Amino acid sequence: MSAVQHEKSARSHIVDAARHLYATQGFHQTSMAELATAADVSVGQIYRLFTGKNALIQALILEDAEAKLSDLRKLTDDVSTGRLSIERGFVELARRSLAKGDEALSFDIMAEAHRNGEVADTIGSLCAGFRAVVRDLACVANPALSADALDGAEELVLACMFGLGHRTLSCPRLSETETAEVTGRMILAALHAL
Amino acid sequence: MSAVQHEKSARSHIVDAARHLYATQGFHQTSMAELATAADVSVGQIYRLFTGKNALIQALILEDAEAKLSDLRKLTDDVSTGRLSIERGFVELARRSLAKGDEALSFDIMAEAHRNGEVADTIGSLCAGFRAVVRDLACVANPALSADALDGAEELVLACMFGLGHRTLSCPRLSETETAEVTGRMILAALHAL
Repeated sequence: MSAVQHEKSARSHIVDAARHLYATQGFHQTSMAELATAADVSVGQIYRLFTGKNALIQALILEDAEAKLSDLRKLTDDVSTGRLSIERGFVELARRSLAKGDEALSFDIMAEAHRNGEVADTIGSLCAGFRAVVRDLACVANPALSADALDGAEELVLACMFGLGHRTLSCPRLSETETAEVTGRMILAALHAL
Repeated sequence: MSAVQHEKSARSHIVDAARHLYATQGFHQTSMAELATAADVSVGQIYRLFTGKNALIQALILEDAEAKLSDLRKLTDDVSTGRLSIERGFVELARRSLAKGDEALSFDIMAEAHRNGEVADTIGSLCAGFRAVVRDLACVANPALSADALDGAEELVLACMFGLGHRTLSCPRLSETETAEVTGRMILAALHAL
């Protein structure tokens, strides 16, 4: 293994271990020493690859957001080129929003972002990518939308995506599949009504 | 002051201080000793009134949820009796959803609920109240909704409410008033489309 490969592998070991520990016990409750043990590296090695806990949290956020965004961009592309109908596009958007990552970790990260400007900035700039995807889909759904209506559509669709992704605590009766079908159709109807 | 009044006042002092400390620094980062100092009571007095941190968190959740639910029930009542049009009802629902409490504390509480069954149960049972309000409003919006459609409407409207209340990190361009107007109308249109 080359030095670069070795560093890459250590980095991904650390990020995976951080994800597991932070998800199960919270990142304020996890020390660098515990993380080093779990990732089978030294504390010094963590600090050579990450400036600190902030950098680790940001690595987790980026890893998740990039995977989700690339998936959503593919979906938008399928809709724009007609490989997928706009109706199915919104059902798929709802379905992907419903697919849960680790909710405890997501909520921890969002709480941290409200107390830590760096984390907030990372999330804010990633959201610009999600806003662009939503805007593209809304334009296909209703090409007659004015700029103001598009701004409103962006807020509604983002709110739905966020809410659908964090509904576990509210004890929903409908399954993910049922919810995706009905909410996808409703969101499309809402965009047609503007 | 009678003993009962005194206990009530100590209790509300402790809850207020807990809200402030937990919001600014997180509840895992706040010791009972710090809380006692901030509330100007002894640690023993906290434990006489609350079984522990769980009970304090649940007191905060209940205080917030009861205020919000009673406000929403009044709104539903105004719509049901025709004092408020259903259009304005949904704009008001969106506006109330957008009114932020302390988001860092909300996210902390939700993270905790994913690791702590007692907190999850408290939130789950409170959500039943929110679901009932949403269902009542959806029935006024579209009395022809089938039971299945109502289940779907409940998911969509709850997701919107949750998402609108937690949009700060996504750097929205639209103001709360603009967002309430457009999303309220869109949610109503979505309910008519079912």
